[in-house]
Amino acid sequence: MKPAPDPGLLFERNLSAFMEDWFAFLRFPSVGTDPAHAADCRSCADWLCGRISKSGFDARVLETGSIPAVYAERRGGIGRPTVLFYGHYDVQPVDPVPEWKSPPFEPELRGGRVYARGASDNKGQVMSALKAMEQLVRVDALDATVRILIEGEEESGSGGVARNLEAWSDLLKADVLMVCDTGMAPGGAPALTIGLRGLIHATVELGGPSRDLHSGVHGGVAPNPAAGIARLVAGLHDSSGRIAVDGFYEGVEPPTPRERELAGLKAFDERAYRSDAGVPPVAGDLRFTPVERLAFQPSIDVNGLRSGYDGAGTKTIIPSRARAKLTCRLAAGQDPGRCLALLKSHLESHAPPGLDLRITESGVAGPGFRLDPDSATARKAMAVLDAISDRPAEMIWEGASIPIVSGLARISGAEPLLAGFASPEDSIHAPNESFSLGQFRMGFEYAARLLASF
Amino acid sequence: MKPAPDPGLLFERNLSAFMEDWFAFLRFPSVGTDPAHAADCRSCADWLCGRISKSGFDARVLETGSIPAVYAERRGGIGRPTVLFYGHYDVQPVDPVPEWKSPPFEPELRGGRVYARGASDNKGQVMSALKAMEQLVRVDALDATVRILIEGEEESGSGGVARNLEAWSDLLKADVLMVCDTGMAPGGAPALTIGLRGLIHATVELGGPSRDLHSGVHGGVAPNPAAGIARLVAGLHDSSGRIAVDGFYEGVEPPTPRERELAGLKAFDERAYRSDAGVPPVAGDLRFTPVERLAFQPSIDVNGLRSGYDGAGTKTIIPSRARAKLTCRLAAGQDPGRCLALLKSHLESHAPPGLDLRITESGVAGPGFRLDPDSATARKAMAVLDAISDRPAEMIWEGASIPIVSGLARISGAEPLLAGFASPEDSIHAPNESFSLGQFRMGFEYAARLLASF
Repeated sequence: MKPAPDPGLLFERNLSAFMEDWFAFLRFPSVGTDPAHAADCRSCADWLCGRISKSGFDARVLETGSIPAVYAERRGGIGRPTVLFYGHYDVQPVDPVPEWKSPPFEPELRGGRVYARGASDNKGQVMSALKAMEQLVRVDALDATVRILIEGEEESGSGGVARNLEAWSDLLKADVLMVCDTGMAPGGAPALTIGLRGLIHATVELGGPSRDLHSGVHGGVAPNPAAGIARLVAGLHDSSGRIAVDGFYEGVEPPTPRERELAGLKAFDERAYRSDAGVPPVAGDLRFTPVERLAFQPSIDVNGLRSGYDGAGTKTIIPSRARAKLTCRLAAGQDPGRCLALLKSHLESHAPPGLDLRITESGVAGPGFRLDPDSATARKAMAVLDAISDRPAEMIWEGASIPIVSGLARISGAEPLLAGFASPEDSIHAPNESFSLGQFRMGFEYAARLLASF
Repeated sequence: MKPAPDPGLLFERNLSAFMEDWFAFLRFPSVGTDPAHAADCRSCADWLCGRISKSGFDARVLETGSIPAVYAERRGGIGRPTVLFYGHYDVQPVDPVPEWKSPPFEPELRGGRVYARGASDNKGQVMSALKAMEQLVRVDALDATVRILIEGEEESGSGGVARNLEAWSDLLKADVLMVCDTGMAPGGAPALTIGLRGLIHATVELGGPSRDLHSGVHGGVAPNPAAGIARLVAGLHDSSGRIAVDGFYEGVEPPTPRERELAGLKAFDERAYRSDAGVPPVAGDLRFTPVERLAFQPSIDVNGLRSGYDGAGTKTIIPSRARAKLTCRLAAGQDPGRCLALLKSHLESHAPPGLDLRITESGVAGPGFRLDPDSATARKAMAVLDAISDRPAEMIWEGASIPIVSGLARISGAEPLLAGFASPEDSIHAPNESFSLGQFRMGFEYAARLLASF
């Protein structure tokens, strides 16, 4: 066991080799949510398994019954802690494809950023950590036991891992659960994420006329599914922006005094938000600040609406059906199963008269949670994050979800440690997703320093 | 001038020749609302002009500046009345194409019905009347002056004819305006239509985020265009089904005692409605009966809704934009221009905060109107309609619109006479549109008897 060399030097000497593997990883169209890409996901898992094996790990593909995961282990020194590293190799769908400046699965370096679906979420972040482990092994500076679990269903709710948690419990035991699927602080400083929201989803359909009806012959008599879905969706919030689903807020954990203090310290730059997102931060329950809303409050979003005609000119019809796709982010303390049941029963009890409501897809991804900002591991991670940037590290809550993290925390017995380097500029889940070489370097340095410290 | 022979005999002797021309007419994909079919519309107009010329009319294609119309004239005896016959050769779009059992522009006779886009609306009805004129000329039984105007923009609001009404006023002068773009009574009896609704349209877009946003990172903070359009559309009606646009009902003509009496006599078969339309008649202002709502009340319908993702699985986004296509049917007495202005200003004043509302397409097609059920021409037409069927003819109001009729009535000085033979079974504006040979025969007999009587 040698002392760890300067991670900055390791990065600079090996960047071109790192990029080669990163690009190879990005070329797999591993869209886990789309059944048409199941074979691509498996190829990606096989490739990743081979790559990790070459870094000195005992790696294998873990069957899940759906999309496979990759598991690897490297035993460390006796008495050293065990780190379970978690990430995902699946990516979001790529539509609308015409809006991509370069093809989503042909990574391209432009102006210091790598553009491709998954460049940031999560292949870029995973690759930066894997490269840190590879380099530490190479220079004999990794003494902790490291276990790696990289799954292929994070974007669709981690069903495969969730189903196998109990069966894999021996593989997953650890002291620290290291997760690199989060972002930096809004101002661009490295950040430790001490809270995530939960996630549930539902697709609602309203069936109506047996065919598209003439809007003149039937207008004002036949119920219109497009108008009905609009009313149903509008009824999910009251006029003040609060969720109108009865009982939905039950269990929401109010922030502790320490959390309230941390939240109060955060500046929220409304101008920067507008300029990045293109909209002002005016949704939700305005009695709370935007930071508080994302950290401590649930939300319901419409991900898609579809009904009738959308071509040129007019088509005077009452459409025969309408569909809305919904997701809810849950605050810590809310029971996802109960929230989904409440959402469904709200939709059913508000179904517009004369139309046939069906919930065609729905499910629970996982609960939200918040972590102790003052634990020993949190402090250690903060020290590393402070060391790799000119800007002091921050503790943040993210509004997003990594549904499987609470399940992994429970089964592994480990304390979650969430630090990642995504930034709003990455456009994750959107066209032209990217990750800069600077972000990749921070991911590498953080993992190298943290793992060497155990 | 000979006495008119039995129209039933004329029909039976010539049906196969009639069908040949009818099928040829249906093979033109004359979708007037779609710019991609502009050339098909012109070909259809050229063909139709040629066909009418062969029947003893002086026919020509009338340029409109957009899609051409076909005009024809045949001078009758001195002192005889002039009939202006109006119809349209354009048809509705054909999507969803996979739902057609035979291709929409390859007419097919199945079980006594001809299936094709336009089979009923309006090519079938137009052809039945043209064949009646052709046969009357052939047997020298047409003594009235007959003028024919068949346009190619009825389904998109008759803009070309509307713009040229003043320029064509000499061509259009007439005593009776004969229109065959209406339907039979709900029970299947021949009907004289004594009212139509007006029509306006608008397409509303909500622009929001500069890209699709991650629904976790932004959920409950960034305004969601899909949720916004839902709220906007839902706000067009109050919870009782009445239109919530301020001032929209102004000018709506209440029914006269005679109209109220006629409406009260009409049975509305709710079971038959459900079985045909697939929905119960529960939309609109339920203080009125379905017959009254279609006859005397305006309506607003959503023809299409589009936003975000609608594929398999979940895509956790806040969509960057959303769109709704709207049409309103107007009651007699409502000013279409004023209603459109009120609708726009309602949408603008209810635009959800943080989103950018644009009305991308909008326009007035025409006003609604109601006719005197007791005029001499109405009585004559009722007598003819009574004679061609076993069932007594009825007077009805249609909820649909033929926007140009009120303009044509004004410029021609003629009394509108609206009798057509469409039925709900025809599925006009929907997949598998059809028209039966029985309906075609009624159209033929009505036109033959009526025109011979002038």
